[in-house]
Amino acid sequence: MRKIRHVIEAQQWDRPGLEELFSLTRVMRDSIKHRYPKSRQHAHCLEGYLMASLFYEPSTRTRFSHEAAMIRLGGRVLSTENAEQFSSVSKGETLEDTIRMASSYADVIVLRHKEQGAAARAAAVSRVPVINAGDGAGQHPTQALLDVFTIEDELGGIDDRIIAFVGDLAYGRTVRSLAYLLGKFRPTKLLFVAHEVVRMRPDIKEYLDRHNIPWEELDNLELAARCADVLYVTRIQKERFGDRISEYEEVFGRYIINAELLAMMKEKSIIMHPLPRVNEITTGVDSDPRAAYFRQAENGQYIRMALLHNILNQDCH
Amino acid sequence: MRKIRHVIEAQQWDRPGLEELFSLTRVMRDSIKHRYPKSRQHAHCLEGYLMASLFYEPSTRTRFSHEAAMIRLGGRVLSTENAEQFSSVSKGETLEDTIRMASSYADVIVLRHKEQGAAARAAAVSRVPVINAGDGAGQHPTQALLDVFTIEDELGGIDDRIIAFVGDLAYGRTVRSLAYLLGKFRPTKLLFVAHEVVRMRPDIKEYLDRHNIPWEELDNLELAARCADVLYVTRIQKERFGDRISEYEEVFGRYIINAELLAMMKEKSIIMHPLPRVNEITTGVDSDPRAAYFRQAENGQYIRMALLHNILNQDCH
Amino acid sequence: MRKIRHVIEAQQWDRPGLEELFSLTRVMRDSIKHRYPKSRQHAHCLEGYLMASLFYEPSTRTRFSHEAAMIRLGGRVLSTENAEQFSSVSKGETLEDTIRMASSYADVIVLRHKEQGAAARAAAVSRVPVINAGDGAGQHPTQALLDVFTIEDELGGIDDRIIAFVGDLAYGRTVRSLAYLLGKFRPTKLLFVAHEVVRMRPDIKEYLDRHNIPWEELDNLELAARCADVLYVTRIQKERFGDRISEYEEVFGRYIINAELLAMMKEKSIIMHPLPRVNEITTGVDSDPRAAYFRQAENGQYIRMALLHNILNQDCH
Repeated sequence: MRKIRHVIEAQQWDRPGLEELFSLTRVMRDSIKHRYPKSRQHAHCLEGYLMASLFYEPSTRTRFSHEAAMIRLGGRVLSTENAEQFSSVSKGETLEDTIRMASSYADVIVLRHKEQGAAARAAAVSRVPVINAGDGAGQHPTQALLDVFTIEDELGGIDDRIIAFVGDLAYGRTVRSLAYLLGKFRPTKLLFVAHEVVRMRPDIKEYLDRHNIPWEELDNLELAARCADVLYVTRIQKERFGDRISEYEEVFGRYIINAELLAMMKEKSIIMHPLPRVNEITTGVDSDPRAAYFRQAENGQYIRMALLHNILNQDCH
Repeated sequence: MRKIRHVIEAQQWDRPGLEELFSLTRVMRDSIKHRYPKSRQHAHCLEGYLMASLFYEPSTRTRFSHEAAMIRLGGRVLSTENAEQFSSVSKGETLEDTIRMASSYADVIVLRHKEQGAAARAAAVSRVPVINAGDGAGQHPTQALLDVFTIEDELGGIDDRIIAFVGDLAYGRTVRSLAYLLGKFRPTKLLFVAHEVVRMRPDIKEYLDRHNIPWEELDNLELAARCADVLYVTRIQKERFGDRISEYEEVFGRYIINAELLAMMKEKSIIMHPLPRVNEITTGVDSDPRAAYFRQAENGQYIRMALLHNILNQDCH
Repeated sequence: MRKIRHVIEAQQWDRPGLEELFSLTRVMRDSIKHRYPKSRQHAHCLEGYLMASLFYEPSTRTRFSHEAAMIRLGGRVLSTENAEQFSSVSKGETLEDTIRMASSYADVIVLRHKEQGAAARAAAVSRVPVINAGDGAGQHPTQALLDVFTIEDELGGIDDRIIAFVGDLAYGRTVRSLAYLLGKFRPTKLLFVAHEVVRMRPDIKEYLDRHNIPWEELDNLELAARCADVLYVTRIQKERFGDRISEYEEVFGRYIINAELLAMMKEKSIIMHPLPRVNEITTGVDSDPRAAYFRQAENGQYIRMALLHNILNQDCH
């Protein structure tokens, strides 16, 4: 398997690289799922290795997922859950100096930051590998990797599928990173269901055009639900709408996934969501087998185990 | 030993269950106390197991105690010390969704929450065991377990003892959980020493009546101190008194455990406190052998080791 | 090697003690630097030992450095990154009670606190060793130890060197602890380059006089740079100047280490800084071999490994 140095953006991977990564991800999942009683062949894989979690904005889900992945492989963790408030940042230290410090103590750094481009800046000065756990409006590549893995795992492949995105397509870095990765495959079509305020941006559309991936914008969620194999839902943030509150309320109420909408969906389809959700998927949907979002979240741990395993280059499987 | 799934409320235990638990707690204590040099037969017991500490309100003491217990048995920990501020909660995620997430990464969840009933709600959706580390005005069962263990350990039993509660008996979940557990035994009498604003509530009194445990309310701390085998002291919070400030000041000054009061107590009695204390026990009392509150705090680690050992069902002693 | 109980202040060490410690520090550094592949003879040294990090004010650098040291030796960590906000302190608990609690769970306590003398108060009640990781305007002894180690390591010794301090010499506990330690050696001279508002205090000057260490105050950074073997730079905090803002701005601009100043320095000299830096050393200086501050920071981990190794008294090298 080819060696990864840093995990900065979804575009790093080509299709064979993704397939290798997914295959290792399945190995990791099996090692956890079947670990009782005691079949823990990976439990000492990264023994003696140390990860530094540097979260400049809090995200318990993403942090826990990376830390669990490290610990499940035998590694250990230094953790700060709110670096902006708690660290030298408040004294005016640059990100670069903080990274130089952390990289002299740890063997790998997981970085969550508010500014786009922070992960690349960190990688430029770090003595150890850097994993981008979200950088502002930029990317969240490990989320995109687990999303693509989930589609492949749930539906048996990405090619020839119709994938509909619903919600905030303008500001959600999750959706942006995922669109980049889908460009490596041959989906039938991408559907973008969004209010004009939060519509998918031109750079992604141009990228898809260059890769000959058909896409279509539509306003009607029901139409998308009826033909999609994947309904990828994201949270719409009120603050994006500024003082257009009534528009927010109108759009928010229109894009809700509930039992009624579920009834329109194909039998073999899935609903995904990067979580946390608020009201955009009703809890009544949770028990339907097509509700894949909790399985998707769980896959986060396995994909991050595979990445750490690759990055720290251990030959123990 | 019968298997525990979740630790939600003190009422879960019956007397034989408590006695089993206390016996395991003593085994755990011995394994720590005599661990130098290297008699660490339990040090690898929970190897490969992962605990998630989800503290929605900070409590360093309770968190450290659970985490130390896990680590002393060879397990590892994911930790958030202020989930309310740092997690998806601030984005509107429900407790249920957060628990689903955590339970897909960890093998056991320790939950501290501001809302009564939070632990039961968590247990209902979690894929792994949940330990209630305090839920609002609800319960704090592991505190009650360590309290009962401490009385038994210090005095040789609960039966035929007089146990006096002093301080805030209305809002203190510690006192409430403990009263439930004492109902499983045959204490001679419970004494409640409290100002009318923070008096023991009717539900506990009715519970004790149903279990034929005599109780009595009194105003005079000295009277209680003279006859009690256990003086269980809690902190009175000013905010409970609203604008009745002068009453607060009056009552606060009246219920102080100092050398003078200590002199009235029986030779074989003990003073307990769930900690933190502020001024309700003067530091002059600390060095008296009857001051049991630091030993009580230390017991917290051993009772939690016993619980984790039971819950994760390891046969390594 | 003589056994250390608590690490409270720089004055604890005499010169032979420092030399023993530095020799163990080099052993620790080698064990980390050459640990790939797998020459990890110290990796299990402190297995079964637990450290509690109690940081009453946040300091990610210092916390990570201690925790990494503990983990690299096989130990584990309980951590709180903002104890003041998150712990029982906010409920009015004394430092002494918190330390009693932590010392019943952990085998060693690392304490960072805002009040001078906090570490000594902690040591007085703790059942386990306490390491002072900075107590207000008091001391930061492990920083001073790593500073002296760095000078010795980079220049081959402290004796017969000229060591210039630049920046905030009045309030920086780093500089104060370091001056105490240098009094154990025979430097040619100490130079103090500081504005009158942040000048070195009389107590240090008297201490140096008693130890026959020559010192001189000067205003001219260039003069100091030309003759110094070590230029120890610290951050000047605006708030020290109160409403004398224009003076702050004038002095801040005058004491900047940049390429021009570097050109005046001796070939064999080094620039040190306890970090974080803000603008007082320009990034252009970083790539010069005389810029020792990142190597200095890295040494923090090794000196703390040596201290933990000594304190917990393990014979595994």
